[in-house]
Amino acid sequence: MATVAAEKATPTDRIFNFGPGPAVLPEPVLEEAQRDLMSLPGVGMSVLEISHRSKTFEEILDGAIADIRRLASVPPNYHILFLGGGASLQFSMVPMNLLDPDRSADYVVTGSWSKKAVKEAQKVGTVSIAATTEDENFTSIPEQSELRLDPEASYVHITTNNTIYGTEWHREPNVGMVPLVADASSDVFSRPVDVSKYGLLYAGAQKNLGPAGVTLVILREDLLARRPLPPKGLPTMLDYNTHAQNKSLYNTPPVFAVYILRLVVKWMLEEGGLEAIGRRNAEKAEILYDALESSGGFYRPHARPDSRSNMNVTFRLPSEDLVKQFVAEAGKHGLSGLKGHRSVGGIRASIYNAFPKKGVEALVSFMEEFAKKNG
Amino acid sequence: MATVAAEKATPTDRIFNFGPGPAVLPEPVLEEAQRDLMSLPGVGMSVLEISHRSKTFEEILDGAIADIRRLASVPPNYHILFLGGGASLQFSMVPMNLLDPDRSADYVVTGSWSKKAVKEAQKVGTVSIAATTEDENFTSIPEQSELRLDPEASYVHITTNNTIYGTEWHREPNVGMVPLVADASSDVFSRPVDVSKYGLLYAGAQKNLGPAGVTLVILREDLLARRPLPPKGLPTMLDYNTHAQNKSLYNTPPVFAVYILRLVVKWMLEEGGLEAIGRRNAEKAEILYDALESSGGFYRPHARPDSRSNMNVTFRLPSEDLVKQFVAEAGKHGLSGLKGHRSVGGIRASIYNAFPKKGVEALVSFMEEFAKKNG
Repeated sequence: MATVAAEKATPTDRIFNFGPGPAVLPEPVLEEAQRDLMSLPGVGMSVLEISHRSKTFEEILDGAIADIRRLASVPPNYHILFLGGGASLQFSMVPMNLLDPDRSADYVVTGSWSKKAVKEAQKVGTVSIAATTEDENFTSIPEQSELRLDPEASYVHITTNNTIYGTEWHREPNVGMVPLVADASSDVFSRPVDVSKYGLLYAGAQKNLGPAGVTLVILREDLLARRPLPPKGLPTMLDYNTHAQNKSLYNTPPVFAVYILRLVVKWMLEEGGLEAIGRRNAEKAEILYDALESSGGFYRPHARPDSRSNMNVTFRLPSEDLVKQFVAEAGKHGLSGLKGHRSVGGIRASIYNAFPKKGVEALVSFMEEFAKKNG
Repeated sequence: MATVAAEKATPTDRIFNFGPGPAVLPEPVLEEAQRDLMSLPGVGMSVLEISHRSKTFEEILDGAIADIRRLASVPPNYHILFLGGGASLQFSMVPMNLLDPDRSADYVVTGSWSKKAVKEAQKVGTVSIAATTEDENFTSIPEQSELRLDPEASYVHITTNNTIYGTEWHREPNVGMVPLVADASSDVFSRPVDVSKYGLLYAGAQKNLGPAGVTLVILREDLLARRPLPPKGLPTMLDYNTHAQNKSLYNTPPVFAVYILRLVVKWMLEEGGLEAIGRRNAEKAEILYDALESSGGFYRPHARPDSRSNMNVTFRLPSEDLVKQFVAEAGKHGLSGLKGHRSVGGIRASIYNAFPKKGVEALVSFMEEFAKKNG
């Protein structure tokens, strides 16, 4: 058994995972998790078995909070929460907690996930679409001048990165005094972020932060105080106050997912923090976009240049048959997860924080060869 | 790295974990998870990194469903779902989906978790307390004759095992044609179960099924059809139909927790299924209850004999000072997690499916010695 574990631990078995999420994790994180999986050093049980009320988990949780605060310079008046249910549950929790019945909320629609957020908010109250780029199949992020913002809105909601379409906000919109709420699931902590510009920022962990099963919520504490009242009938589990007051320990949190997230955040700090990670992500994306631009039109990017994502690079080939062939041949070269979402077609290369530069280089080599053979 | 992993894999590092949950997992499950953590055989990535839309995860999910169906003879007209948010979120989902606005729901209150379930249901509609044993600090489960059941109720809700108090329903109440809904978090699959007696059965995984972060829901499909209408404003994520129609893949499920749960269920089948597991659990509990009864009053069980749990054995010592001493000395003997809940005091030994008989024997030896020295 031990020998097998040792053999499986060699990274040579591993392929390049361009999947959009759940996505590749840092190898040092996986190695540490593997090493300690039967028994955490000095604890005598697996992290899969420890009580969420134990000192061991308290240290993991406090460590995660402290390291996130340090990594992203999160101001002291923000709660850092770890919740279950995925970002999709936040689509409901945000309006249930923050949408004043006498006001509306502004939503900027930049893709399928924004639309889902709108749909859930409409079940709770009045939603105003501040802008949408659906007409152009979400190839861009709206300009500031295109936003129809209500200065009396309860909040403005954006999706910072659109996994399916490969677009990304390169700077926060100016929303005045209205709280900015962001679904940052697919580019959280991929570059420096000024948290003080946000009222609430949420992110499913499974792209940049850890495994599926935990959602990070960073929440300015005055937002809870200023809501009209604990909304009538709000389930305890959907009340941000419940989790803020109990430091994410009202009920049993997803212990193992928080543990992995904590290791990932530690790794981000060791890698040099968000400045260094942002530089590396920009560099990886540039290599890929350059390859698209220099392909003589064989590879056609989906997103408009000013809106391109550093996380998900989306492009088409001359035909969908060639796309199929591309995906199949790439798979044989150990390049996995490249099939684009059906609503865009083509190829999507997801290159989150933990995705290695050498994987991008391997893809570019493959792309050049593929274009030469099929161009 | 590899050598360290091998060393940590030896079960000798491990102590006896009597914690109430998250709780001990079967060692073969931990060993398999550890072996494959860097890279699933033939997949080239960790299960922490695989897409929930991948063939690999589809096999894990289908395997989990099929094995649960086999393990508990779940009839074909029941959905088997894996949800996030914990059993605490089910406290709201149950009434939001099943409580008819023109009817009430009957709740049997046998402990703190039942009370929380009532509190959430009261936010949704009318709740009737069919019985409560709170007056006697929840030392027992009500008799059938004590239940005030409404034949027109939307459902009857019970908590099958009460972790804090150490009581357990030994047979389902007779509820006529009204659907029986059960929070089975702390004794699910600890013995044979006739699923057809239930309309809905839910269980957080972290006691008998796997790690924290996933909740099993077994749901008779006609219950969704007969609810008045998709209740107005019901968030998509809180609608059982969403998850039933999408086979728990509407959004990203807690992939790793489902993977571990799937290994645990496989282990249960290999151990001989629920008959064998039930026999072993009864045997383990009997050893402990016998030790209490034969202690000449030094150890005093909390639960009434007819209501005693095979999962959580609760008892007091002559003084709370002795309890403290007991917990401290037991810890030094590698017996961990024995402190009772503050609302009962004393000692609680949680001995779920994966808890080994030799751990119970070690505790009994320790108890005899402790009573001799301090009696």
